[in-house]
Amino acid sequence: MNYRMIAYLLGNILRIEGVFLSVCAVLAIYFNERAALFGFVTTVVLTLVIGTAACLKEPKNKKIYGRDGLVAVALSWIVMSIFGALPFYLSGAIPSYVDCFFETVSGFTTTGASILQEIEGLPMSILFWRSFTHWVGGMGILVFMLAIMPTADERAMHLMRAEAPGPLVNKLVPKMKSTAKILYGMYFALTLIEIVLLLVGGMPLFDSVVNAFSTAGTGGFAIKNASIAAYDTAYYEYVITIFMFLFGVNFNLYYLALLRDFKSIVKNEELRYFVTIIVAAIALITWNISAYYDTLEAAFRHAAFQVMAIISTTGFATANFDVWPQLSKGILAVLMILGACGGSTGGGIKISRFIILVKTAIREIRLMVHPRSVNIVKLDDAKVDEDVIRGVSSFIIVYLLVLFGSFLLISINNFDFTTSFTAVLTCLGNVGPGFAMVGPVENYHFFSDFSKIILTLDMLIGRLEIFPMMLLFAPSVWKKGYM
Amino acid sequence: MNYRMIAYLLGNILRIEGVFLSVCAVLAIYFNERAALFGFVTTVVLTLVIGTAACLKEPKNKKIYGRDGLVAVALSWIVMSIFGALPFYLSGAIPSYVDCFFETVSGFTTTGASILQEIEGLPMSILFWRSFTHWVGGMGILVFMLAIMPTADERAMHLMRAEAPGPLVNKLVPKMKSTAKILYGMYFALTLIEIVLLLVGGMPLFDSVVNAFSTAGTGGFAIKNASIAAYDTAYYEYVITIFMFLFGVNFNLYYLALLRDFKSIVKNEELRYFVTIIVAAIALITWNISAYYDTLEAAFRHAAFQVMAIISTTGFATANFDVWPQLSKGILAVLMILGACGGSTGGGIKISRFIILVKTAIREIRLMVHPRSVNIVKLDDAKVDEDVIRGVSSFIIVYLLVLFGSFLLISINNFDFTTSFTAVLTCLGNVGPGFAMVGPVENYHFFSDFSKIILTLDMLIGRLEIFPMMLLFAPSVWKKGYM
Repeated sequence: MNYRMIAYLLGNILRIEGVFLSVCAVLAIYFNERAALFGFVTTVVLTLVIGTAACLKEPKNKKIYGRDGLVAVALSWIVMSIFGALPFYLSGAIPSYVDCFFETVSGFTTTGASILQEIEGLPMSILFWRSFTHWVGGMGILVFMLAIMPTADERAMHLMRAEAPGPLVNKLVPKMKSTAKILYGMYFALTLIEIVLLLVGGMPLFDSVVNAFSTAGTGGFAIKNASIAAYDTAYYEYVITIFMFLFGVNFNLYYLALLRDFKSIVKNEELRYFVTIIVAAIALITWNISAYYDTLEAAFRHAAFQVMAIISTTGFATANFDVWPQLSKGILAVLMILGACGGSTGGGIKISRFIILVKTAIREIRLMVHPRSVNIVKLDDAKVDEDVIRGVSSFIIVYLLVLFGSFLLISINNFDFTTSFTAVLTCLGNVGPGFAMVGPVENYHFFSDFSKIILTLDMLIGRLEIFPMMLLFAPSVWKKGYM
Repeated sequence: MNYRMIAYLLGNILRIEGVFLSVCAVLAIYFNERAALFGFVTTVVLTLVIGTAACLKEPKNKKIYGRDGLVAVALSWIVMSIFGALPFYLSGAIPSYVDCFFETVSGFTTTGASILQEIEGLPMSILFWRSFTHWVGGMGILVFMLAIMPTADERAMHLMRAEAPGPLVNKLVPKMKSTAKILYGMYFALTLIEIVLLLVGGMPLFDSVVNAFSTAGTGGFAIKNASIAAYDTAYYEYVITIFMFLFGVNFNLYYLALLRDFKSIVKNEELRYFVTIIVAAIALITWNISAYYDTLEAAFRHAAFQVMAIISTTGFATANFDVWPQLSKGILAVLMILGACGGSTGGGIKISRFIILVKTAIREIRLMVHPRSVNIVKLDDAKVDEDVIRGVSSFIIVYLLVLFGSFLLISINNFDFTTSFTAVLTCLGNVGPGFAMVGPVENYHFFSDFSKIILTLDMLIGRLEIFPMMLLFAPSVWKKGYM
């Protein structure tokens, strides 16, 4: 293992985090929040000093093997969460460090599950940092690093591959650094447009920015106890619904749009499935909840908002869907598992994996009927490699093992089946709200520290799509003499 | 498709069912139950006449292709359930035919889920038939037919493969007919021993026989409203616990025992996992529920009974485990999915599939760490074919699609999440009881006819391990000109 290179990468991540945190420190000065300022300044000093120390010596060998890349990504996420949690702790905003860590991982992984019962009393700079973690985690901090680091070389492609969601990650342009830059450029532009549109509707600047951060990362942290319902304005709801959709789509499509290749966009299979599932879910839920609302428009608006909030794994709430009929809740539960498109900022197993799974199953049945038929699985008219198919199958298997294993461990807390099961489901899918005691108007404060740590691991496993995290627990990765 | 041969097979199945039903008719005479007698005699006449008509002309071409075999098995199970439901309906024991069909499929598939709220008032002969369906369905009616049909030839192996549970089905001896005979011989002997042991403890003959049928098939239909708890005798509970274990084990092991090859039994990996999981589950649950019972023995006895009842997918109850702490319920929920060993009469996804899944996942992680390592998945020291691994992965994927699809359809009934989800889980795993409204002291009467039909299909899909049932819905199977 190339320990020196991994340390170098981690050091750079910390330095970037330090810069981000300085912005929050400036905000703390602006809002005159002393406790928060102390938390931010201390953390900035720590991250910059430790980060700079770690990358003082540039490693001679900058090769990052596939396995080392996965380990580096997993460690980066853990390290940046450990330090990212400090401002919450040092400012006194969240008294328990386990809670701080839970909240920060929930932020970076864009889950949006919170242990806070009371949000509105927190310092503004702390709220800003909390939502900003969504924005950073959505597109990925390693991708960001690759976009700005002068020394990033082509071999770092698997760093991006390990961090980016979905079964198939491709470079947009031959140079990986340019790919990372283009991705962050589009991400930044879309976020800006959402901020402007919210401002146009009359939302205060601060609220517009943090809500746009949460939407962009498909995170779900709000700065009001009642989430987006607090604004009670149909305009905001429609704007956010549309942007939850936009951030749930594969970013490669925006690049195609820039190239004016609209034909490829329309033909994109994942997008077609995504839209079909969304339309069907909204139609069914609108019909199913129509009796709960005065007008059909209100039913449609709430259905559309919640479908997009769940399938994009943002997790914002405008309605307490936990009181909706079971069919609507069942649909939302299934969407929690599916998640958004590969290459988006959303979580879940991803639509493209779902498509590959369904097609693999159909192939198996077809093979039984016509044993000699040609049997390749296609996506977007191209053959899907058997390696990818095997990878997707393994992914699902490990996903299930983690899901049921975590469910058993959470069950020790002795909350009901729905609470325990959907808490794990929603954390693993990086959604945020589940049902019953973890429903959209509830939070996670009541779990034991042990359960919170399990759920934190689930969020990381879900965000990094299992294998990078798994590698950290494989003993042979840490064996000496293996390089 | 060889329609003539399929008709011939179905005819034979019906004739065998007619003979079984005649036994019940004799019982109805003995117990002087007129309505039941009418039901049985009518059904006997129908099955024998239609069955004989269907196999009047022996087909010249007795070849059964793989696909035709699967279709024949799926149709057999549907046809024998359609006719097997008639005595319940004609005798007036169950007024709705959908309910009769649900109960019969639940019997043959050894699920043991019931729509009956009041069992004890039913005619004895009807109760006998109800439990006898478990015994017939446990080992499989096609296997039975192969054991007794003089014309069964070697090519019928895939009939057995399609009906027998588990990912790997092997012949015990070169001749398939002898294999079927040996299997049924051991099944019969074990059932007999259980009957004798229950009689020794003082259980009435009729109760001993029907409870042994339910145990043998790992079904779970009881003839008391309180299931096995009605007898309130620790001796019975221990006897049944042990036999639930014995019927949950691969029957090949009994053949090895007959051959005195005890070394292979001890080394059998599936058995080792099965025992390990059972011991761990019993230990955890005993500890978890100890405060609920006066003595540790009582806690252990109930834990052992329920763990075996669930993992063997029998579904008998001696305790209302729905009121146990969530950890115990969580463990039972996971056992519902796992199920028993391949080649047993139990349901679920089977321990051997679980082992293959876990090993495949470990292989995937190992491949990431050491990309050039040798990577074969082994079971019992033998390489598992890549075809089997792919089959197991596809099985799980379709299992999940069916699980979540059915869950959505059941959700239309608007019962809570736990009820809807565990009802599907337990029917698909052929277990019987779930949690909440389908808990061990509840039943399925309250579902709509639509939901009952969905759950009935789930039971068949679970018992035939998905693919035979799926083929019935594949349009190309029914295309003309394809033979």
